[in-house]
Amino acid sequence: MTDNEQIVIKSLPQGKLRAEDYERVIAPMPVVEEGMVLVKTEAFAITAGTRAGLQGSASYAGAPTPGLVMGSTGVGSVVESRAAGISVGDRVLTSTGWQQYSVQKAAAVSIIPESHNAIDYLGPLGVNGLTAYFGLLEVGKAQAGQTVMVSAAAGSVGHLVGQIAKIQGCHVVGVAGSDAKNAKLVDELGFDVAVNYKSGDYRSALKDATPNGVDVYFDNTGGFVLGSALFRMNVGGRIACCGVVSQYDTNAPEPGPKGIPGLLINKRIVMSGFLVFDFADAYDAARTQIAGWLASGELKSLTDSVHGLAAAPEAFVDLLAGGNIGTRIISLA
Amino acid sequence: MTDNEQIVIKSLPQGKLRAEDYERVIAPMPVVEEGMVLVKTEAFAITAGTRAGLQGSASYAGAPTPGLVMGSTGVGSVVESRAAGISVGDRVLTSTGWQQYSVQKAAAVSIIPESHNAIDYLGPLGVNGLTAYFGLLEVGKAQAGQTVMVSAAAGSVGHLVGQIAKIQGCHVVGVAGSDAKNAKLVDELGFDVAVNYKSGDYRSALKDATPNGVDVYFDNTGGFVLGSALFRMNVGGRIACCGVVSQYDTNAPEPGPKGIPGLLINKRIVMSGFLVFDFADAYDAARTQIAGWLASGELKSLTDSVHGLAAAPEAFVDLLAGGNIGTRIISLA
Repeated sequence: MTDNEQIVIKSLPQGKLRAEDYERVIAPMPVVEEGMVLVKTEAFAITAGTRAGLQGSASYAGAPTPGLVMGSTGVGSVVESRAAGISVGDRVLTSTGWQQYSVQKAAAVSIIPESHNAIDYLGPLGVNGLTAYFGLLEVGKAQAGQTVMVSAAAGSVGHLVGQIAKIQGCHVVGVAGSDAKNAKLVDELGFDVAVNYKSGDYRSALKDATPNGVDVYFDNTGGFVLGSALFRMNVGGRIACCGVVSQYDTNAPEPGPKGIPGLLINKRIVMSGFLVFDFADAYDAARTQIAGWLASGELKSLTDSVHGLAAAPEAFVDLLAGGNIGTRIISLA
Repeated sequence: MTDNEQIVIKSLPQGKLRAEDYERVIAPMPVVEEGMVLVKTEAFAITAGTRAGLQGSASYAGAPTPGLVMGSTGVGSVVESRAAGISVGDRVLTSTGWQQYSVQKAAAVSIIPESHNAIDYLGPLGVNGLTAYFGLLEVGKAQAGQTVMVSAAAGSVGHLVGQIAKIQGCHVVGVAGSDAKNAKLVDELGFDVAVNYKSGDYRSALKDATPNGVDVYFDNTGGFVLGSALFRMNVGGRIACCGVVSQYDTNAPEPGPKGIPGLLINKRIVMSGFLVFDFADAYDAARTQIAGWLASGELKSLTDSVHGLAAAPEAFVDLLAGGNIGTRIISLA
């Protein structure tokens, strides 16, 4: 067999992440021990959340250090198996990382049903889709007729949040950083309106976009956009805190918005942080529902695919600058 | 009848509140119309929350303006009644304001049962006590064996929160701004430990005081102490946002803590703003329970009484600087 091409962390970023913080190495093929499988990576997702781990402090993403392969969720095919119940040729979802091959414990891989598109497991049927689903419905408790606002609305989670909210019968307001993204959200994905937070009239545009206020704010960004949402929230509103992309690409996170906790009190807002892993018991039921929406065409998955391991560092830097529309995927196939 | 002595707002404060922002006036005795009662003030409470309204922006406390009598909750006796069901001599809880006499609509007064101490309606049986009760039990969902942290712990709400948490079987950690207050919390009110946030080793002292982390943080302050609590919260913890005393006595509120929303996500914290008025349907049941604790001696009400209307402005300025222990009351009797 061949050697194993990898992208490893060369240095933890100082300030903004640079492609030079990574380097390509050729490692020996890993040894497959009893109870494990060798997975050949077909594609992996690049998500903003993994930037948080590179800040070197505690994070749910773990604590990457120089010399380690960059982490990511990916899909691949089993090329060697020493685990009962997993066969060569099975397609699986696992933590591939940024490398051609990885060895995984049997418990760390999920076999993808043949009836499903494997790439969807990096999008609507994977962590992104499940995050959108549980964050909107279980944490945000979005109800038909209510207004749902979502930030990073063209991102891997956000573009699914808005569509699921439309399926629920909500009025959906997206916030993203370019007019091109916003046009896509409205024209292709059915958002009611989308507002550009980089525009000079953002606050008045947001006000115009939310004439009945905001009942559920799905927060992927924190920072400035969270602050703007607080002023539009209705009494009894819910904020589902999913990510803090505005604060990932830095070593010096900003303070929180001024309205916390004052506006939370006046408006009796419930602000809940969540991690999708806490809903693992309900993944199967959610995937069944999401797969139905994909099959009926009610839910569309936007992917933004880049080819080749070597392109991953630049693709990550660009994503942190808002360069992606939908889920950014690195394909190796 | 005599004239009506009042303290009115002379100017909305610029920066910190000063006693000179108020002035004493003699107004004519108000006219009692049909359906109304005339109440002679016996005592009123001074609470930090009313400072927020003086910032001139929207607040649940309404929007005071120069020339208006300063608002407050008080107790008094009915001296004239043109309302069915309310008799001269009844003792009532109502929005007396800082004045000797006030006219009230029948619906705006609550008759205090003769079996209860009227002054307790400015403390444990009034808004302060109900706020502590519902914030801790309904919003914070404190359970026996859990750790409860409360800020402004020697304040009108805080000193009741800690005692109710002890009654529930919680480990109780108070945070206040002087060693004298903290000694009182532990020695007289049964707090397990109390930490001085003005002390140089506050953060390490808080860590030592919360060896099992914090399950419920009852936040009366916002700002710096809220930020410190976020680092001690356990996964699945609840923050009951009750007040923002750290940000009231200013025209330029600080930004929120850095850990929002990042730490909310990693720890799946639910942060809920609340107003006690939303629990009005359950006041009677809560008062029955609180009155039982008062009668048994399990709950003690600390009051910090100052005599005379003229003393109210200085007493308010001093309260905002942390000068009170327990509920500050201005008595006119």
